[in-house]
Amino acid sequence: MTGRLRVGVIGTGAMGAAHARTLSTSVAEVDLVAVHDLDAERAEALADELGAAASPSPEALVADVDAVVVASPDATHVGLVLAGLAAGRPMLCEKPLALDASGARRVVDAEVAAGRRLVQVGFTRRYDPAFRELKAVIDSGDLGTVRLVHAVHRNATNNTSTDDATLVTGSMIHELDTLPWLLDQPIAAVRVESPVDGPFRDPQLATVRFGSGALASVEVFVNARYGYDVQTEVVGTDGTASLEPRSTVTVRRAGAAGTPVRDDFVAHFADAYRLELAAWARAARAGTVDGPDAWDGYLANVAAEAGVRSLRSGSWEAVVPDERPELYRR
Amino acid sequence: MTGRLRVGVIGTGAMGAAHARTLSTSVAEVDLVAVHDLDAERAEALADELGAAASPSPEALVADVDAVVVASPDATHVGLVLAGLAAGRPMLCEKPLALDASGARRVVDAEVAAGRRLVQVGFTRRYDPAFRELKAVIDSGDLGTVRLVHAVHRNATNNTSTDDATLVTGSMIHELDTLPWLLDQPIAAVRVESPVDGPFRDPQLATVRFGSGALASVEVFVNARYGYDVQTEVVGTDGTASLEPRSTVTVRRAGAAGTPVRDDFVAHFADAYRLELAAWARAARAGTVDGPDAWDGYLANVAAEAGVRSLRSGSWEAVVPDERPELYRR
Amino acid sequence: MTGRLRVGVIGTGAMGAAHARTLSTSVAEVDLVAVHDLDAERAEALADELGAAASPSPEALVADVDAVVVASPDATHVGLVLAGLAAGRPMLCEKPLALDASGARRVVDAEVAAGRRLVQVGFTRRYDPAFRELKAVIDSGDLGTVRLVHAVHRNATNNTSTDDATLVTGSMIHELDTLPWLLDQPIAAVRVESPVDGPFRDPQLATVRFGSGALASVEVFVNARYGYDVQTEVVGTDGTASLEPRSTVTVRRAGAAGTPVRDDFVAHFADAYRLELAAWARAARAGTVDGPDAWDGYLANVAAEAGVRSLRSGSWEAVVPDERPELYRR
Amino acid sequence: MTGRLRVGVIGTGAMGAAHARTLSTSVAEVDLVAVHDLDAERAEALADELGAAASPSPEALVADVDAVVVASPDATHVGLVLAGLAAGRPMLCEKPLALDASGARRVVDAEVAAGRRLVQVGFTRRYDPAFRELKAVIDSGDLGTVRLVHAVHRNATNNTSTDDATLVTGSMIHELDTLPWLLDQPIAAVRVESPVDGPFRDPQLATVRFGSGALASVEVFVNARYGYDVQTEVVGTDGTASLEPRSTVTVRRAGAAGTPVRDDFVAHFADAYRLELAAWARAARAGTVDGPDAWDGYLANVAAEAGVRSLRSGSWEAVVPDERPELYRR
Repeated sequence: MTGRLRVGVIGTGAMGAAHARTLSTSVAEVDLVAVHDLDAERAEALADELGAAASPSPEALVADVDAVVVASPDATHVGLVLAGLAAGRPMLCEKPLALDASGARRVVDAEVAAGRRLVQVGFTRRYDPAFRELKAVIDSGDLGTVRLVHAVHRNATNNTSTDDATLVTGSMIHELDTLPWLLDQPIAAVRVESPVDGPFRDPQLATVRFGSGALASVEVFVNARYGYDVQTEVVGTDGTASLEPRSTVTVRRAGAAGTPVRDDFVAHFADAYRLELAAWARAARAGTVDGPDAWDGYLANVAAEAGVRSLRSGSWEAVVPDERPELYRR
Repeated sequence: MTGRLRVGVIGTGAMGAAHARTLSTSVAEVDLVAVHDLDAERAEALADELGAAASPSPEALVADVDAVVVASPDATHVGLVLAGLAAGRPMLCEKPLALDASGARRVVDAEVAAGRRLVQVGFTRRYDPAFRELKAVIDSGDLGTVRLVHAVHRNATNNTSTDDATLVTGSMIHELDTLPWLLDQPIAAVRVESPVDGPFRDPQLATVRFGSGALASVEVFVNARYGYDVQTEVVGTDGTASLEPRSTVTVRRAGAAGTPVRDDFVAHFADAYRLELAAWARAARAGTVDGPDAWDGYLANVAAEAGVRSLRSGSWEAVVPDERPELYRR
Repeated sequence: MTGRLRVGVIGTGAMGAAHARTLSTSVAEVDLVAVHDLDAERAEALADELGAAASPSPEALVADVDAVVVASPDATHVGLVLAGLAAGRPMLCEKPLALDASGARRVVDAEVAAGRRLVQVGFTRRYDPAFRELKAVIDSGDLGTVRLVHAVHRNATNNTSTDDATLVTGSMIHELDTLPWLLDQPIAAVRVESPVDGPFRDPQLATVRFGSGALASVEVFVNARYGYDVQTEVVGTDGTASLEPRSTVTVRRAGAAGTPVRDDFVAHFADAYRLELAAWARAARAGTVDGPDAWDGYLANVAAEAGVRSLRSGSWEAVVPDERPELYRR
Repeated sequence: MTGRLRVGVIGTGAMGAAHARTLSTSVAEVDLVAVHDLDAERAEALADELGAAASPSPEALVADVDAVVVASPDATHVGLVLAGLAAGRPMLCEKPLALDASGARRVVDAEVAAGRRLVQVGFTRRYDPAFRELKAVIDSGDLGTVRLVHAVHRNATNNTSTDDATLVTGSMIHELDTLPWLLDQPIAAVRVESPVDGPFRDPQLATVRFGSGALASVEVFVNARYGYDVQTEVVGTDGTASLEPRSTVTVRRAGAAGTPVRDDFVAHFADAYRLELAAWARAARAGTVDGPDAWDGYLANVAAEAGVRSLRSGSWEAVVPDERPELYRR
């Protein structure tokens, strides 16, 4: 493909608007040409701001562009992605690909039927420089064999994760993709527990078992109040590697040394979003997907589903995906 | 009591020798008068170094001193402590008080029969300035209600923890005392798992449930190779508090910024050992025990026993101590 | 202006090539259309890589583009910038604007004669997120009145700073722009000393006095070997603020906890370069300069010249710029 | 000497009381037997607390003890130390040994006349574990040749440093002893400047030149408000080493991650004071001085005097001590 990739964004909430702004300012190979939202006024305001068109419908947007970013509510992902596949559009679909594994499987089936991969799933952390350095350390062998991981994922206030299940499928799903990617091995089983009873069990403490036997403790706490915080420590037989807190300035004042902890995950991962969009656009222009694909999205949904079951059963739930189709073998 | 406390140390291995040296240089209210070890030569060398006598037997040592530090191998603790109780000596017994709960219960029974507490158990972390500050933050209410704790306890190489069970009773027992002390609530259940199979499952990943429902993830790894490392993060509804790594100097050289990680837990907790010995001696002179007592030692043994059972059962094991005797009510 | 800004880059060494790549991948409002270098082969390789043309001369490049980035050797800056001004091109000229104040004054004079500002000087740190947060803390008043600054600027090996004078005009000039920008007050005097004698005095320790009397200690060390390191601590009557070291992952291994220290200032300030280029392009399209302008470049050259004099005199040298022309009043 | 060292403390203000408490609880080889203060009530309260006698006069105290800690106001040091020397008592005299170099010289002369060293000066940092590790790194050669040092010394509020001169002789004197000890080379010249005019110039920014040409920037700020803070970075040809901030617990709460900064230098250096007193007592029992001696106290006073002169002259002032007497050659 020559010329810039003409991109449309479906969904102009916080995430979609951030993607649209990043595409139109910081990804040179792209022209943001259209946005769409059920809230037409919100879509038009963003279109005006960025010099794009406000499409009257997802269908109209898909028809008008080369490639699509899907950032609408989670429940709409599968339908929109299937429509985009029908039109042959490369897509970046925000996580989760689907609300459950069967939804994600429908996307996989459609790609398999079409015989090509078009969908990347928005597992942004794979593009975060810190997570990539962490993976590079693991891959270098310096840590020996990985035995344990300790992961923490806290939001100041719950956004879309508003019940037990969506906390797993909407928030913990990041770890359910990031950890197997980091360790380069599949999740074998998941167990999710919580220190609180009641209608909304938050925080949750998951244990994840990998193919090698390695275990991960995973805390997800979407009402942690103090701010957004993501921690990961990987423990191997020869050493450990851990993400550093992100801070730029320390202020010493009134008896304390302090750094701000933001509550904004978009700002926290701004670099990662930009790098993700740029890599996706580059691959889309080349007719490929080289980031997390629909199969990765399906695997995360399978693991999340096991997590939701475990919240009810209180015990280990096996993670048993279907056999990987030929299309996704690498 | 007027005059200094005449103290004897039983066991002159690494821990006992460290205690003896600390007592003779850094605890002003004490005279170290005697040491004993099965290895008479080792005992005599230390006695010479410190200007104390080398006692020919534990019995002789007990007879000659006002108070006793028991730092001999774990399996000997109960017998020596019972002998000291019979002689009416205040004692500081290294952890664990016993190899199992029934052993610890014998010590408790002896104290109850005698109608007085004489035994402090060497749960040193209660005297560590960092752990005390952590507890002060929790007690201040600034964190809200504690929901989760993440604890890590790594040694460079295994010392006395040489099989699955002693890793729990000898190493993890620190956390099994520290955590309920920090949270001021009892352990309700313990589950211990490991990422490795085989004769010696190291590391172990425990989950601890407290009376309030709060959960703790606890990693113990006694062959972590890189050094000695103790981490604790407490997560409440309003915020978190975590121990800082201990380092004094950062060196930037050859493309890296680094701080040493020692492999020596005695050096790591040197302040705590000194403060523990000083507090114990002060209380002993006053005829009391104000640190962790035989009942605390028993509780930790009960929790450790549940942990050992869980290693075999693979599931939660309830921690059900006997009713607390009147002697230990506060 | 509608459409993208057609940009050419003069100089395809490390800095110019980095700018060209950033422009062509990460700045959406720009088309990189041409590059030029005295080393025609190097220019052509870069042009091929980025899909741009290799211009046979600076003049040809200037004629073909809307705006120009000047990243050629320092000694060529003034001539190239004057040529660009004659052609009416917005420019981003790498620091230093000139080798000395009289050179920079010629650029200022040309802009004053033309009656408009077209030149931005590449004082990148003004776009660095950490430096901006540091400035925001100062501007918030939380530190009270600033009394002192401690700045450190180290390179692993000297690049272009190869003698006493170029260390000041080529390296320290960053601090001579950043510090008055941070404190929002002019430099009154500079003193530069060194712990070493001889042909190349490196490191240098400068003291800078500002209009308010505030003092800064400034270390510049271009052969610090271990890596690239930039530190700044601002000390006010109510508190201090300091830049945090940049690190993403800590590895604990073999008795040490370490983070890498890179030797690459382009990587260190990658975000800042990208934000600088984007802001410059946006302003250029709007027909303005809103970053550091030719007058800022002149002021830094005046201060650097005082620094070079002080290296010889060993004492304070006053920094006495000409009166600010109307064109540069804000 | 056999038996414990019977020690008396002159001066029961904050520093003297802290020393007395440390001696009576944490230094095993010592008996605190007497304290004295012009404020007899204060002395008696401390004596009661610690089981010591309150001496009616310094002379009475000196007569009653084996060794003396002098922690009275700075202006009284020389007189008390001369009296102690006349009585042949080992002494630990708080810094500064004297208000000026001539005062310190009188102590030196008295020791030379007596033919033996009895006085240690309270340059506590030499016993601080962090400063000792910093010195060990320098001595190891890992940093190459030291070129620069950056030192910071801040108090929350001024205590005894209440004018330009006492800020140098009472506070900066720590650095004027610590730095030559760290670098193992004498101070050649000192220059002291301040960003503020007026009756009390605080903060002060000193530059120190060492025998090798190495330079140090030294900030002393005794009204820094936010807390007590001591920083030191040593810059060598192969790398740097810097003191880490001291903190034990990080609290994340309400949008910030923070650690406390205490305002209490006695707490900050508690370990160092204890180790200093223990080492002093041990040497005193052995009839020697192995810490900083009267000659070190004199050298620091000579450097401080140059600093005070420089505050007035605004330029470098040479530090020219007398020739080192045979008694102090090592």
